[in-house]
Amino acid sequence: MSLSTRDSFIQHIKALQEKICVDLEEVDGKSKFITDTWERRGGGGGTSRVISHGNIFEKAGVNISVVHGELPPLAAQQLKVAGTSFFAAGLSLVIHPFSPKIPTVHANWRYFEVYDENGIASDAWFGGGTDLTPYYLVEEDAVHFHATQKKCCDTFDSTLYPQFKRQCDNYFNNHHREGERRGVGGIFFDHCRGNEKYTLDFWKNFTENNGAIFLDGYLPLVNRHKSEPFTQHNKYWQEIRRGRYVEFNLLHDRGTLFGIKTQGRTESILMSLPPTVRFDYDFKPDPGSEEEKLLEVLNHPRNWVHSNVSIL
Amino acid sequence: MSLSTRDSFIQHIKALQEKICVDLEEVDGKSKFITDTWERRGGGGGTSRVISHGNIFEKAGVNISVVHGELPPLAAQQLKVAGTSFFAAGLSLVIHPFSPKIPTVHANWRYFEVYDENGIASDAWFGGGTDLTPYYLVEEDAVHFHATQKKCCDTFDSTLYPQFKRQCDNYFNNHHREGERRGVGGIFFDHCRGNEKYTLDFWKNFTENNGAIFLDGYLPLVNRHKSEPFTQHNKYWQEIRRGRYVEFNLLHDRGTLFGIKTQGRTESILMSLPPTVRFDYDFKPDPGSEEEKLLEVLNHPRNWVHSNVSIL
Repeated sequence: MSLSTRDSFIQHIKALQEKICVDLEEVDGKSKFITDTWERRGGGGGTSRVISHGNIFEKAGVNISVVHGELPPLAAQQLKVAGTSFFAAGLSLVIHPFSPKIPTVHANWRYFEVYDENGIASDAWFGGGTDLTPYYLVEEDAVHFHATQKKCCDTFDSTLYPQFKRQCDNYFNNHHREGERRGVGGIFFDHCRGNEKYTLDFWKNFTENNGAIFLDGYLPLVNRHKSEPFTQHNKYWQEIRRGRYVEFNLLHDRGTLFGIKTQGRTESILMSLPPTVRFDYDFKPDPGSEEEKLLEVLNHPRNWVHSNVSIL
Repeated sequence: MSLSTRDSFIQHIKALQEKICVDLEEVDGKSKFITDTWERRGGGGGTSRVISHGNIFEKAGVNISVVHGELPPLAAQQLKVAGTSFFAAGLSLVIHPFSPKIPTVHANWRYFEVYDENGIASDAWFGGGTDLTPYYLVEEDAVHFHATQKKCCDTFDSTLYPQFKRQCDNYFNNHHREGERRGVGGIFFDHCRGNEKYTLDFWKNFTENNGAIFLDGYLPLVNRHKSEPFTQHNKYWQEIRRGRYVEFNLLHDRGTLFGIKTQGRTESILMSLPPTVRFDYDFKPDPGSEEEKLLEVLNHPRNWVHSNVSIL
């Protein structure tokens, strides 16, 4: 008997969580992940795995949650779906290295089902993506990260990468700062349903594959920069930029706000927040500095890898 | 010819901003406020005054804004008013001392007018208040701060303090942390309109008086604790608690979200965020510690001053 989409995706995220944690511990060489399992009052629960004060990773969380229950009207409105109850399974991770020379990375892969008042599934979709947040712009890092994503997308359909890359730039946008992006992007996909063109199973394979190749895009950057020296000035700038990360997550991130509204586990949702942060009034980098070069690319997202497909 | 409510309140907040900045500079003895004036694209503008890296004040802002323009439907919905344009004038301040032994304080006093599509004023009200956020509980500090507020309220009507005190405890609530309050409270009042019981002028006098006595409640606490020694452990705890301040302001504070939604000036709105902050995963103070004693009172707000009036 084959597993349901739900059960099979749950198996996938559990195995992926384990694999990512093992690989990150090996790279860090000092700290180990702690494990917190928790139950959700409204139904379901999760396992949060967190590493702190490592050689390389100042704070990182790799969390899975498998939750179900009533869908509050506000949450239904936010998801733009009609339904009274839901099931959601996902893996969310955020990695904050100590060194400002190593980028922060975020990824999430999730599956949703929504049910009507009779408990009949009325909707189901996959979503996810990954995005890179450097503190200093190293073009080959951005190129490598995006190339890995493009390669993954192209295996499925060459129209996907340009579309999901653009959605990522549109999503991780601090609108209250005139369109300053959180980082150099990656891919973002959501509401990927079975339809005439693609089956739900197509999106399941895509989502699972995107999870499986995630570390190929990130670990080479960690290894490239982990021994690089940095100054107090570099660290200060990292903490200023981490402030923008906090602003995005608490003001705009749909996942965070959905979790808070559906009485998710606060510590697991807010695990994404960086360990040390600065909020200076009206901080501006020096003209012509490396810090200003980063801002330039955050304000004007670039195409990092050549795509054969033109989209409008 | 007597001034309109609008113009007279604008005069008041300008003079109050100047007075508060002069008094804070005198106490600090080192840093001076910088002045930033700005214009709002949609109409109006403001003056932000910010002090940083002082002897005592690590970051403090005392801002006024006088803005007007279209009222976006989302903002109207949040204010629970019907109208298509608005006028708002207010003074907002947040003071973050460097020492974890000195409490943070916030205050705001504001006046709103809302107009229908013909430009006719359809609504007008005052709001405001002040609240104290200590990092270590010193009961006489909380008592002094609340006694100053009660005295101010009682001059107008002895039913006001208990009502506004309770509203403050209800408002500065990190709901996503099971009702942990931001601090030990103070008073909070909103939508204070002219009606059969009180005139709009009554509320104007009350709001202005509450601004005028603000420093009487706070400066004695600064002077009491400014020479007290503190440890790295105390500073760490302050930065953890400052994380909760950030969470409240970006997730729940109506003023912040209103400002962001109405395209207010981001740097002035987010001036309230503390200068250095920590977000540790699932931080818990030691049982029986001073840190835990603070949490106890944040989770169970107390009545700090005896009131003769019972309200239900």
